[in-house]
Amino acid sequence: MGFARKEYEFLRELGLGPRNPGSYINGKWKGSGPVVCSVNPANNQNIAEVVEASIQDYDEGMQACSEAAKIWMQIPAPKRGDIVRQIGEALRMKLQHLGRLVSLEMGKILPEGIGEVQEIIDMCDYAVGLSRQLNGSIIPSERPNHMMLETWNPLGIVGVITAFNFPCAVLGWNACIALVCGNCVVWKGAPTTPLITVAMTELVAEVLEKNNLPGAIFTSFCGGAEIGQAIAKDTRIQLVSFTGSSKVGQSVQRTVSERFGKCLLELSGNNAIIVMDDADIKLAVRSVLFAAVGTAGQRCTTCRRLILHESIYQSFLDQLIGVYKQVKIGDPLEKGTLLGPLHTRASRENFEKGIEFIKSQGGKILTGGSVIESDGNFVEPTIIEISPDAAVVKEELFAPVLYVLKFQTLKEAIEMNNSVPQGLSSSIFTRKPEVIFKWIGPHGSDCGIVNVNIPTNGAEIGGAFGGEKATGGGREAGSDSWKQYMRRSTCTINYGNELPLAQGINFG
Amino acid sequence: MGFARKEYEFLRELGLGPRNPGSYINGKWKGSGPVVCSVNPANNQNIAEVVEASIQDYDEGMQACSEAAKIWMQIPAPKRGDIVRQIGEALRMKLQHLGRLVSLEMGKILPEGIGEVQEIIDMCDYAVGLSRQLNGSIIPSERPNHMMLETWNPLGIVGVITAFNFPCAVLGWNACIALVCGNCVVWKGAPTTPLITVAMTELVAEVLEKNNLPGAIFTSFCGGAEIGQAIAKDTRIQLVSFTGSSKVGQSVQRTVSERFGKCLLELSGNNAIIVMDDADIKLAVRSVLFAAVGTAGQRCTTCRRLILHESIYQSFLDQLIGVYKQVKIGDPLEKGTLLGPLHTRASRENFEKGIEFIKSQGGKILTGGSVIESDGNFVEPTIIEISPDAAVVKEELFAPVLYVLKFQTLKEAIEMNNSVPQGLSSSIFTRKPEVIFKWIGPHGSDCGIVNVNIPTNGAEIGGAFGGEKATGGGREAGSDSWKQYMRRSTCTINYGNELPLAQGINFG
Amino acid sequence: MGFARKEYEFLRELGLGPRNPGSYINGKWKGSGPVVCSVNPANNQNIAEVVEASIQDYDEGMQACSEAAKIWMQIPAPKRGDIVRQIGEALRMKLQHLGRLVSLEMGKILPEGIGEVQEIIDMCDYAVGLSRQLNGSIIPSERPNHMMLETWNPLGIVGVITAFNFPCAVLGWNACIALVCGNCVVWKGAPTTPLITVAMTELVAEVLEKNNLPGAIFTSFCGGAEIGQAIAKDTRIQLVSFTGSSKVGQSVQRTVSERFGKCLLELSGNNAIIVMDDADIKLAVRSVLFAAVGTAGQRCTTCRRLILHESIYQSFLDQLIGVYKQVKIGDPLEKGTLLGPLHTRASRENFEKGIEFIKSQGGKILTGGSVIESDGNFVEPTIIEISPDAAVVKEELFAPVLYVLKFQTLKEAIEMNNSVPQGLSSSIFTRKPEVIFKWIGPHGSDCGIVNVNIPTNGAEIGGAFGGEKATGGGREAGSDSWKQYMRRSTCTINYGNELPLAQGINFG
Amino acid sequence: MGFARKEYEFLRELGLGPRNPGSYINGKWKGSGPVVCSVNPANNQNIAEVVEASIQDYDEGMQACSEAAKIWMQIPAPKRGDIVRQIGEALRMKLQHLGRLVSLEMGKILPEGIGEVQEIIDMCDYAVGLSRQLNGSIIPSERPNHMMLETWNPLGIVGVITAFNFPCAVLGWNACIALVCGNCVVWKGAPTTPLITVAMTELVAEVLEKNNLPGAIFTSFCGGAEIGQAIAKDTRIQLVSFTGSSKVGQSVQRTVSERFGKCLLELSGNNAIIVMDDADIKLAVRSVLFAAVGTAGQRCTTCRRLILHESIYQSFLDQLIGVYKQVKIGDPLEKGTLLGPLHTRASRENFEKGIEFIKSQGGKILTGGSVIESDGNFVEPTIIEISPDAAVVKEELFAPVLYVLKFQTLKEAIEMNNSVPQGLSSSIFTRKPEVIFKWIGPHGSDCGIVNVNIPTNGAEIGGAFGGEKATGGGREAGSDSWKQYMRRSTCTINYGNELPLAQGINFG
Repeated sequence: MGFARKEYEFLRELGLGPRNPGSYINGKWKGSGPVVCSVNPANNQNIAEVVEASIQDYDEGMQACSEAAKIWMQIPAPKRGDIVRQIGEALRMKLQHLGRLVSLEMGKILPEGIGEVQEIIDMCDYAVGLSRQLNGSIIPSERPNHMMLETWNPLGIVGVITAFNFPCAVLGWNACIALVCGNCVVWKGAPTTPLITVAMTELVAEVLEKNNLPGAIFTSFCGGAEIGQAIAKDTRIQLVSFTGSSKVGQSVQRTVSERFGKCLLELSGNNAIIVMDDADIKLAVRSVLFAAVGTAGQRCTTCRRLILHESIYQSFLDQLIGVYKQVKIGDPLEKGTLLGPLHTRASRENFEKGIEFIKSQGGKILTGGSVIESDGNFVEPTIIEISPDAAVVKEELFAPVLYVLKFQTLKEAIEMNNSVPQGLSSSIFTRKPEVIFKWIGPHGSDCGIVNVNIPTNGAEIGGAFGGEKATGGGREAGSDSWKQYMRRSTCTINYGNELPLAQGINFG
Repeated sequence: MGFARKEYEFLRELGLGPRNPGSYINGKWKGSGPVVCSVNPANNQNIAEVVEASIQDYDEGMQACSEAAKIWMQIPAPKRGDIVRQIGEALRMKLQHLGRLVSLEMGKILPEGIGEVQEIIDMCDYAVGLSRQLNGSIIPSERPNHMMLETWNPLGIVGVITAFNFPCAVLGWNACIALVCGNCVVWKGAPTTPLITVAMTELVAEVLEKNNLPGAIFTSFCGGAEIGQAIAKDTRIQLVSFTGSSKVGQSVQRTVSERFGKCLLELSGNNAIIVMDDADIKLAVRSVLFAAVGTAGQRCTTCRRLILHESIYQSFLDQLIGVYKQVKIGDPLEKGTLLGPLHTRASRENFEKGIEFIKSQGGKILTGGSVIESDGNFVEPTIIEISPDAAVVKEELFAPVLYVLKFQTLKEAIEMNNSVPQGLSSSIFTRKPEVIFKWIGPHGSDCGIVNVNIPTNGAEIGGAFGGEKATGGGREAGSDSWKQYMRRSTCTINYGNELPLAQGINFG
Repeated sequence: MGFARKEYEFLRELGLGPRNPGSYINGKWKGSGPVVCSVNPANNQNIAEVVEASIQDYDEGMQACSEAAKIWMQIPAPKRGDIVRQIGEALRMKLQHLGRLVSLEMGKILPEGIGEVQEIIDMCDYAVGLSRQLNGSIIPSERPNHMMLETWNPLGIVGVITAFNFPCAVLGWNACIALVCGNCVVWKGAPTTPLITVAMTELVAEVLEKNNLPGAIFTSFCGGAEIGQAIAKDTRIQLVSFTGSSKVGQSVQRTVSERFGKCLLELSGNNAIIVMDDADIKLAVRSVLFAAVGTAGQRCTTCRRLILHESIYQSFLDQLIGVYKQVKIGDPLEKGTLLGPLHTRASRENFEKGIEFIKSQGGKILTGGSVIESDGNFVEPTIIEISPDAAVVKEELFAPVLYVLKFQTLKEAIEMNNSVPQGLSSSIFTRKPEVIFKWIGPHGSDCGIVNVNIPTNGAEIGGAFGGEKATGGGREAGSDSWKQYMRRSTCTINYGNELPLAQGINFG
Repeated sequence: MGFARKEYEFLRELGLGPRNPGSYINGKWKGSGPVVCSVNPANNQNIAEVVEASIQDYDEGMQACSEAAKIWMQIPAPKRGDIVRQIGEALRMKLQHLGRLVSLEMGKILPEGIGEVQEIIDMCDYAVGLSRQLNGSIIPSERPNHMMLETWNPLGIVGVITAFNFPCAVLGWNACIALVCGNCVVWKGAPTTPLITVAMTELVAEVLEKNNLPGAIFTSFCGGAEIGQAIAKDTRIQLVSFTGSSKVGQSVQRTVSERFGKCLLELSGNNAIIVMDDADIKLAVRSVLFAAVGTAGQRCTTCRRLILHESIYQSFLDQLIGVYKQVKIGDPLEKGTLLGPLHTRASRENFEKGIEFIKSQGGKILTGGSVIESDGNFVEPTIIEISPDAAVVKEELFAPVLYVLKFQTLKEAIEMNNSVPQGLSSSIFTRKPEVIFKWIGPHGSDCGIVNVNIPTNGAEIGGAFGGEKATGGGREAGSDSWKQYMRRSTCTINYGNELPLAQGINFG
C-alpha cells in the first residue's frame, strides 16, 4: 500500500507506512484501539493512519515496563548514558527527515521543525555527560564514626504526556534525563501528532534492540484522554510529567496526588515583552516578531502581551505592524515561509471565536484578525490594542494574537507583567544595568524564565525550563532538573560501636 | 494573677503569664478568638490560658505580613542571616527554660525537650552560614554575547503549620531557612501546645524589635483547623509547609494546588528497623528501645515495625523485652524517666482502641498493651507479634507500640520495609558492606531516611529531612532544601547587538 | 609595671601587658627569643614589648601541634564548627578593643580597624555554617556493585604567615576555614604587629581551654624571617598560606615545593580603576579616594593606577584633586581622620625614595608627593601623571601614590589594566551592559577580583579572595576556597564479588 | 615508499607513513628537527620515522597558537563542546586502529591499548556534557543593589607534556577539558611514542579543519627535553600539565613558578595494596596480578607494594606466585598475552640494575627477577620479599616488580602505606565496614586514590585522578578538575547609586 501523496514517501525512512500500529509494548509494535488519521494542517488532508492503544494494550505495556524497570535501574548510570548517546546518534542520522515530519504533521516551519529535533540531540549529548555526574553528597556528621550520605536512586517509571506543539522536544527533555537517571519511560504523545510519536519511538526502540535491552524500557502509546487518565492513576508510575493546559494539568495533579505520586507540570504561559524607552528598538521589533508569530503563536513561550513604554509606543507599533505585513504565510515546508497554519481546524475556530470575544471586551485590531480562506488552518498574525484590565488578557489564546499595552514607569510595567495567573516566560528590552538587575531580582518578573534583550522563547537546554504559578512550577532540561527524576535518600551509616544521638541527646 | 502552681513560675522568663494573647500580628500581641487551656499531659491539669486567633486577627496579621514581605525581601541575605544569628543567640540564653516548657506542655522527657530546642539553635547557626551561600549559577550560553543565569529570589510569605510532637523544632527547620531566603513566616503551632508557640514567637519578636524591623516579618497564630484552612487558601502565601497526618496533608495539598501554590509536606511515617543475623545485637537493642519508646512513640520517625532475621528472632526479642521492662515511666521532667505520658487524653484513648483493633487482627502482645491508671496519659511500652499482612501494620498508631515481624532473606526484609504506604525512615543493622550498599541503593529502602546501625530517628540538620510516598515527598533542614523556599529564575541576558536563536534556528 | 601611657591601659582587656611572651606553645605562653618593641606609627613611640619565639620555641610548639593534629582531625566537623562559633562570640565581645589595637599598632583609621575585626567575626559565622557543608560527592560508577566517592579529609597542620597591613583579618580568613576543615593552625604574624598577634591568640586560646581542647590546636609565634623559613621548610606543615610580597612569596613557594608541600599565596597587587566616559563620576571619585588613600595605600587591593577616558580625564582629575586636598590626615584613632601614618619609619623612607624614582621616570606630581614633618610616619596622598610605559608603573609602591593614565578605547583600557605582572584587583566604572559583561568575560580583566562601579577593595567574605599571575593564584575566604585546606580522596568501593575493570578492559 | 613490514600497513588508516613530519603548526604538518625512529618494543625494530620539532618550529607554532587562542576563547562553550564531540566520533571510528598502534608502539597488550583509546572517547562524551555546565556562581552580596558573581574564564593556552606509558589517554584527560574550557592546547608527547602523537593530532586536526577552525587551536610537537623546557618557560602558556617523574616534575614546576605560571602535576606513584585477614582472597589475588603485572608494571598506578596480614601472608603468596607463573609473556598484539615487553631497551637495563640493587638491600626474590632473552624488552614478573625499611621500597622502579611486606594491625598497615614519599594510589581488601571507613577517613590512606576491594589502578573518568605529596597534587579528568583549566574571577557589580562598603566600614 502506498502513501496518498508521493511527497510523503520520505516517511518510510522513519519506519512509517500508510497505516501504523501505535503502541510500543514490551518491545513490539501493537495497537488494538481506534484508528485515527494524521492530518496535514496546511491542507487538512490525511497523511497516514495510526491504530491507537486500547486500555488492554496499556496494561500489557505497563506490565512489561514494570519488569524492565527492575533491570534498567541496576545498570550503571554511565552505561545508561551510552544508550542515550546512541539515541542521539540515531537522531543525528535522521535529523532532516524527522524535522520534516514535525513540520508536516504539526505545521511549524521547517527550520523550527529541524530545530526541535536538534534540541533532543543536544539533550542527548547533555544527558550523556550527566550520566557520570548524578552526584550524591557526603555530608559531615556531628557524630564520630558516622558517615552521612545523600544518595540519589531511580524512581522506577516516569510517565510523559506531551502536547502537539512540541511533539518530540518535550519528550526529549524528559526521556533523556529520566533514562540516564535509571527510569523507564512511558510516553503518550498528542493525539494529533501520532506519526511523530511512532517515528521517535521506533528510533529509540532500534537502539534498545541493538543493545539487547528490553524494549519495554521505553514504552509508548498513541492515544487520548483515556490513556492519559490511566497514566495519572497508575501507582506503578512514580512521576508523571505533563505538558498542556493549566486546567488539565491541575486535574492530572489532583489524580496523581491522591495516590501520593509526583508531578512535573509544564502548563500555560501568558508571556510578556516589556520595551523600555532606552531599548534597541530594531532588536526588540525582530524579537517580538519571532516571539509572537513564530510557530503560529502556539509555543507555550509565545509572546502574547507587548508592554510598551509610552514614549516609544507609537513608533514601535508602526515598525512592528510594518514587519507583520511582510510575514510570508503558507506551507511550512516551503522556504521563506514564516507563518504556517494553526495545528487543527478546531484551533482555527478557536481563533475566530477568540477574536470575537476580544472585540467584545474592547480590543481594537491594529493588524490581522481574520482567518485566511484556504484548505488549511491559516490565520493572520494579529495585533490588538486593549486595556490591561480586560479579562481576556489574563488568558492564553493559542494563536498568533498579540495584545499591546502601554506603561509609564518600570514598576508599572513589572506589575503588568506579573498580573496574570500564568508565570512562564518574560522579557525586557533595555540597556540600563539598574533595570536589568531589578528585573531579575526579588521585585522583578515573577516568571520562571526572565530574559533581557531576547524574546520570551528560545531557552537553551543547559538552564532549567518551566514556570511559576498556573504554569505549574516544574522545571525540565538543565540545571538540577534531574533531581526530580530521582529519589533522594538521606543515609547515616554508623561504622563504630557506640550509639551517640544527634543534638547531644542522652537516652537511657 | 499567678500561675496555678509555683513550679510554673519559670514560664515568666519566657514572657508567659497565666493568660496570654495568642496572635502576634504586625508586631503586637493580640487575640480575639476562643480561650483555650494548655494542659500538662502528666496530670491533665491546666498550665495557663491562651486566647486563640479569630479570622479577623488572621486577616489583620496577613495584611501586615504582606507589607513586611516587600521590605524583608530587599534586605541583603547576609543581613537577614544576622537576624537569624541573633535569634539563635536568644535561644541559647533560654535553652533550659524553653526545653523545660517543651517537656512540660508536650510531655516528652527533659533531655528530648532540650534537644529539640538545641536543634533550632543548630539550624540558626547553619542558616547564618547559608545566608552567604544561597548561590545561583552562571551557565554557559550557546550564543555569543549572551549570559545565562539561574537566580534565586524570595517567594514572599511562607506558611508553617506544625504538629504537637515537635512543637518548635519543625518551626525552626522552616523558619530559619525561610527567613534567610528572604521570606516572611506565618506560623500556626499545634492547638495543644500554644504556650510554646507564644514563647518561641516572643523570642523572635524581641530580636526583630531590637533591630527596628517590622514585627510582621514573623507572624504567628495560635488556633486550630479554621486558621489552618485560611493559610491553605491564602493566595498571599506562596508556600505552605505542613507537618501532620497523611490525610490532612493531602487535603492541604489539594487546597493549595487549586490556587497554584506550593506545598512542603512532612506526613505520616511507619518506620521499620531490620536486624540482620550478623548485627551488633546490643547496639540494635538499644537503638530499637530509643526508636520505639522515645517520645512515647510520638515521633514521626518512631520505629513502629521491627523486622528480625529468624536466626536471631527469639534471642533479640528476649533482650528487648528485658529492657522494655526496665523502662522508667513517669513525669517527663523527672530525672531518669524514659517514658513520659502521651500528649492528650484522646491519644490515650486511641491507644486503647488501637490495642483492641490489633488484637482483633491477630496481634499477640509480648509486653505492655495497657494504659497506666493515673491522672496523666501514661501507657505501657508495647511489643506485638503480628503477621506482616495484617492491615493494621500499614497504619501509623501514634503511641509506643512496636510490631515484630520475622524474615529469612534480605530481599524479603526490604520488601517488608517497603510494603507500607508511608516512606519516611528506615534502618538496618548489619556489618556486611554488600548489605549496606544494597540497602541504600536502587533496590533498597524506598524511604527518605535510610539508616545503617542507628535508629530510625535522630536526623542531623545538615541532611535533608523528609520522606517519600504517603509521607509527602518534602525535604526540610539541610542539603538543598532551601531551594524550596525560593523562586528559581532562568535568565538569559543578551548584551550584544545580534539576535542569534537557540538550537541554531533561523527565523526571518 | 604599667604602660608608658595611660591610654594604652585598654590593652589589659585584651590580656596584654607592658611586656608579653610571644609564643603560644602547647597551650602555654612562652618566649625565649629576642625582645622587640611594638611601635605606634603615629608617633614612633613604644607601646609595649614582646618576646619573640626562638627556634627552640618553634620546635617545641610544632611537636605539640603535631600531637594535637591527631586529635583535632577526628573531632566531627560540626563540633569543630562550634569551637569556631565560640571564637566568633569572643571576638564580638572584644570588637571595640581589638579594633582599637589594630588601629593603634598598625596605623589604619579606627573604622577600618573595627572593620577588620568584623571581617573575622563574619568569617567565624560563615565557617560555622560551612562545618556542616564540607561535602564530598558520590559519583556514579560505570561498574556494577561499585560506589565511587570523593571524600575530603583534613590536611593536618596549616601554617599561616600574615603581613602587617591586615594583621588579623588574614589570619581569620585562613584559621576559620582551616579549623573547621580539621587542621591545626600555626600562625606567624608580622614582626611589627606583635601585640595583635598575642591578643588574637589569647582570645582563641581561652576558647580552646574552656572546651578542654589542647591549646596546641592553635599555635602562634611572634617572630621574623627565621620562623617564617622554619615554617616553609617544615614537612609537618602540609599547607603554608603566605601573605606578602611577590618576591618573598616566590621564595616561600620554592622552599615548600621542594618538600612537595602545598602553598596558598596572596602576593602583590597593582590594581587599576578604569573610568569610562559614561561613568557616574561622583560615585567614581568617591571610590577612587577610598581605594587609593584608604589604609594609607597599604592594602593589597589599594588602587595604584587610575585609567581615565580622555573625554572625562581633566574634569575627573580636577574633582579628585579637590577631594584629595580635603583629606584629613592625622592620628588614626581620632574621629574624622581619613589618612593615618604609614606603618613604619622605613615605609616613610620608601615613599620618599619612591617619589624620587617616579620623578626620574618622568612622573609629574599633580598633588601631594611629600612626607609630612612630624614624629609619626605621615605622608601626603599623592597623584602622579605618568606614561603607562614607565617601568615604575609595573611595581607596587606600598603607599598612597596613584598613577593616572589616559585611554581612548575600552580595548586599550583593558590592555593597560592587564599589562602589569600582578593580577589581584580591578574595577571599571560604566553604565553600559556590553562593557560590564565584556569586562568580566574572557577578553576582560585578568585579575582575580573584577569589580564594576565599586572600588578595587572591600571584598565580601562569601566570594573567593585572591589574584592571578604574580599575585600568586591563591584564593581565600568564601566560595570553595575550603578545598585547599583539605586532602581530596577519590575512593572506589567494590562491594560485590566480581572484578570488572574500568573502560571495559579484559585482563586475564 | 612502503613500511618495513606489511603488518604496519594499517598505520595508513591513521594518516601515518614510513616517514612523518612531527609538528602540527598553524594547521600544517612540518618538522625541521632531528629524525627519530619509532621502535617496536617487542623486537626493537623500527616501525617508522618521525621528524621532530626544532625550536624554530616551536616558535612558529606558538605564535599561531596565541592568535588562535583569541578566537577560540570567544566561541561559546557549548559550541566548543560540539567540536570535542566530533573528536570523540572520529576516535570511535578509529578505535581499533589507534588501539593497535598504542599496543604496537608502547608495548602494552591490545585490550589495554584499546582501553586507553576508549578512555579518551569517554572523556570526549563527558566533556561535551560539561561544556554546558562550566558553571559560575551568583553569591548573595551583603550590600543592597550589588550582585556578586564568580565567573570562570579560559586561561588561554594549556601545555600538555605526556609520558610514554599512557601515550594518548593523558592527552585526552587534559585536552578534552582544556578545549571545552576555551583553551588552546599545545601537546608534546613522549619522544618514544611519536607515531601515536602524530596519529592523535591528525585526527583532531581533521575535525578542526572540517569546522573551518584554525588548526593552531591544537598545536602538537614531537620532541624531547628541549621542547619540554621551552613549554615550561613560555609565558604564553598559562598552565603546564606535566606527567612524568617526581624529579622532572619538580624541575618543571620550578621553571613555571618563576614566571608565575600554573602547573598541574601527575608524578610518580608507589602504590600499595593492603590485604586484611578477612579479605576475599581470590578477588585480591586477581587484583594484585592486574595491578602489578598489567602494562608490565609501567602504569603510574601499578601496585609496587603488597602489604599482607601475617595470618594470610603465606597462603596468599602461594596463590599469587602460582598465578604469576601462568602469566603468558609475549607479543602484546597476540591474543592471550598478559605481559608485553618493557617500553625500551633502557627500561630493560634499568630492570636489571634495579634487581641487583634490591638484592643488595636484602630483597629476596620469590619469583621472577630475570630478563628474558629475546630481541624484545621482555622481563619476568617479579615478587620480592623485603623489609619495609629498605630504602629501595620508597622508590618507583618502573617495571613489574612487587615488594611484599607483612603487618599485624590495621594501624601498622596504614602507616606502611603512607610511609613513602609518593601518594598516588592505594587499595585495601576487607569486608569490614569499620575498616573501609577508617581507610577512607582522616587517619586512613594519604593518597589521592583510595580504593576498596579493587586494584590500585583503573580509575573512572568521572572522578578526579591524581595524587598527593611527591605525586604532585594535581587532579585530572572528572569532578571539578576543570576549574584548574580556567581563571576564576570574583566580580562585584554595583547597579545602584550608593557606595556602601563591605564589613559596614564608613569612609569619609
